[in-house]
Amino acid sequence: MEKIGIVGGGLAGSLIAVYLAKRGFEVTLYEKRPDMRLNRISAGRSINLALSERGINALRKVGLDKQVLETGIPMSGRMMHRVDGERSYQPYGKEGQAIYSVSRGLLNVKLLELADEMDNIKIVFDSDCVGANLKTGEVRLKGKDGNTFTDTFDYVIGSDGAFSAIRQEMQGRSMFNYSQTYLEHGYKELTIPAGPGNTFLLEKNCLHIWPRESFMLIALPNLDGSFTCTLFFQMNGPLSFESIDNTEKLDAFFDQYFADAKPLFEDLHGDFFNNPTGTLCTIRCYPWSSGKMTLVGDAAHAVVPFYGQGMNCSFEDCVVFDEMFDKFYPDWEQLFEAYEKSRKPNADAIADLALQNFVEMRDLVADEDFLHFKKVEHELTELYPGKFKSQYELVTFTNEPYSYAREQGARNSELVKKIIRDNLENKLNDSEFMDTLFSEYIK
Amino acid sequence: MEKIGIVGGGLAGSLIAVYLAKRGFEVTLYEKRPDMRLNRISAGRSINLALSERGINALRKVGLDKQVLETGIPMSGRMMHRVDGERSYQPYGKEGQAIYSVSRGLLNVKLLELADEMDNIKIVFDSDCVGANLKTGEVRLKGKDGNTFTDTFDYVIGSDGAFSAIRQEMQGRSMFNYSQTYLEHGYKELTIPAGPGNTFLLEKNCLHIWPRESFMLIALPNLDGSFTCTLFFQMNGPLSFESIDNTEKLDAFFDQYFADAKPLFEDLHGDFFNNPTGTLCTIRCYPWSSGKMTLVGDAAHAVVPFYGQGMNCSFEDCVVFDEMFDKFYPDWEQLFEAYEKSRKPNADAIADLALQNFVEMRDLVADEDFLHFKKVEHELTELYPGKFKSQYELVTFTNEPYSYAREQGARNSELVKKIIRDNLENKLNDSEFMDTLFSEYIK
Repeated sequence: MEKIGIVGGGLAGSLIAVYLAKRGFEVTLYEKRPDMRLNRISAGRSINLALSERGINALRKVGLDKQVLETGIPMSGRMMHRVDGERSYQPYGKEGQAIYSVSRGLLNVKLLELADEMDNIKIVFDSDCVGANLKTGEVRLKGKDGNTFTDTFDYVIGSDGAFSAIRQEMQGRSMFNYSQTYLEHGYKELTIPAGPGNTFLLEKNCLHIWPRESFMLIALPNLDGSFTCTLFFQMNGPLSFESIDNTEKLDAFFDQYFADAKPLFEDLHGDFFNNPTGTLCTIRCYPWSSGKMTLVGDAAHAVVPFYGQGMNCSFEDCVVFDEMFDKFYPDWEQLFEAYEKSRKPNADAIADLALQNFVEMRDLVADEDFLHFKKVEHELTELYPGKFKSQYELVTFTNEPYSYAREQGARNSELVKKIIRDNLENKLNDSEFMDTLFSEYIK
Repeated sequence: MEKIGIVGGGLAGSLIAVYLAKRGFEVTLYEKRPDMRLNRISAGRSINLALSERGINALRKVGLDKQVLETGIPMSGRMMHRVDGERSYQPYGKEGQAIYSVSRGLLNVKLLELADEMDNIKIVFDSDCVGANLKTGEVRLKGKDGNTFTDTFDYVIGSDGAFSAIRQEMQGRSMFNYSQTYLEHGYKELTIPAGPGNTFLLEKNCLHIWPRESFMLIALPNLDGSFTCTLFFQMNGPLSFESIDNTEKLDAFFDQYFADAKPLFEDLHGDFFNNPTGTLCTIRCYPWSSGKMTLVGDAAHAVVPFYGQGMNCSFEDCVVFDEMFDKFYPDWEQLFEAYEKSRKPNADAIADLALQNFVEMRDLVADEDFLHFKKVEHELTELYPGKFKSQYELVTFTNEPYSYAREQGARNSELVKKIIRDNLENKLNDSEFMDTLFSEYIK
């Protein structure tokens, strides 16, 4: 069996290592950080993530789904906080459907533990990829001692994230399409601690949003009763991370826009002025494979976090990559090509949807017309569960291709607009009438 | 006065060196190739270029326009070659307007000669930029002997082309937007030699096009009577550079598609199989400046060659950059920012127009409806020279912003379509009627 190198032991890298080891390959996983099982440092800047069906499905295939869901907190809808403190709740899907707030660090540790149990996976920490030869399969790494060494594989998977060294090698090659596009917004994490006796100071089973048109605050619950909040805010300009440069301005800003949340923070000043400001970048490239190497996860398609699909999409890459072995192994060239051709349109679709959802989250969730639209859409979801699936449902609660979710989402939108425009809301229960409409709008 | 480093002594780099030296700065120009005045190697892969008003205007400011135009061949229109050998001619503009086929190598030499005459310009050849410190103004270079050395400047201009090392430094920085997008077509240069006594074997004062829908051949005249032809053709696929892999297939391909041109080549087989296949890439980025460095020309915005504007746009960068000194010097930060803000929308516009023109050149110039459209448009140009300017005219024969040319071009298109659709061609001479139409469509 071939010797496979995996560069990057984050979420996608450690999962794909397990998939490939299960197929019998000899796998070596290089990770630049120290062993996160020994040092509980944050495995990445965002502390918790929203796990949904695609991610759960990928974990199910290695028997980790139940364990992970037990440590996650189900969030069944959005709790929208208005400026005046009033709240409104929008369920994400049908009764019983939820996305899960999970700890990135804990999930990564579980995946590494699973990988470590397998005899044919070797994990090497503290090894930073500094270059590669796409043709020969050689990877150059810098160890903890600062010395550079090489390792050569039959095939290499670059799961080394948005600033991938493997992709960097591809970028210098002719005919490699590439783009990196930053939002003008950055983000900062702020913490709402648990209340007395590890109680939750906000409703536990929601994703909280404070939409403020050009910026927003969100909060996801953690197991210990705390919430990790993220402020998405302009980097520069008259009202921005740049402009809020002292505690008076910070207090005034929170008093004006997030008055109900402000008393819940323990150290707003410290969090705001000491935590790093992250940037939000969409990365697209093609092809994903060159010679003996291919890309998975953020290395191939970093997306903005507003659909909660970054990790889920990366895990789905691993599932699709794994499935290609049944069809194409041992023809790796065909396997790589079929994988990238299958995934690229879906990665592009979720990248677009994530950008669109930023506008929806920060702006439209506070808009009356939008709420009306959502209400009709939700009624269709409840009344016709087998037939009508919202875009959010398709993305979050199914394994249908993201590209289909985008297309059907656009058609759904036309359908709901027609219902509202033509005053057809009184016919929502008329299933014969609705079937005719569905046949026109649902493909 | 500040010490300015210029990285890259191609067309834009050598022109901007002269502009800056005229303003009194101490300029050092590093060029990776040997001195092209001593070694008449090709200064780049494309041998001749189409010089038009923006480029001429930039040369005018340093007194080189007349000299350069004397060595150029005016091309007053397109000569379209059909598959059956029939030809049709479309003028580019009004009587007397032309674009000029000039030699890239000769133009570069003239600019370097001019630079060399100036006491405050130092030119260093055989020095390849391998890195830079954007904050300190330090540039790292590799000399002819293979040794690396550094030079530090107050400010640095990266004019080092589509694969710019200075831009590469910027790309690693946060909030730097970047994309490189390849066409599926590549190109190859082929030569039609001069006839007996340096005569031209095709009409001299035209740009010749053999449009074949999914690919095309073009030819530009050279001073010595030869034509440099470029075949734009799919890189891969059933009919492509890849598929034509022996002389029989090559002959059959030219017999079928370019039968009138084929006998004119001297060494079609040699040219086709020995000349390199070039790729066609659009590069966009933003911002163009960081710290003490900024970008001009292809380093900031490589465009595909189908509008003949790559060099003209780069020269216009130099003009705009130079004009910023009148307003902002000695505030370099403001100067860099005003320059990039002014140029970015125009660079984006010409990048888009160049991509669109590829479709027009290879496909539409052989289409009856398109020729009808062009005929009406040309009549408007001739009848209302002060009022109606075609997009081609705006791009090629004026110094109006490219972004305006794109917008007005779209409005022109609506206007001409309306005239054809509403059977108004008999009113083209009715200036009162046309004025009403113009007031609606021309901004």
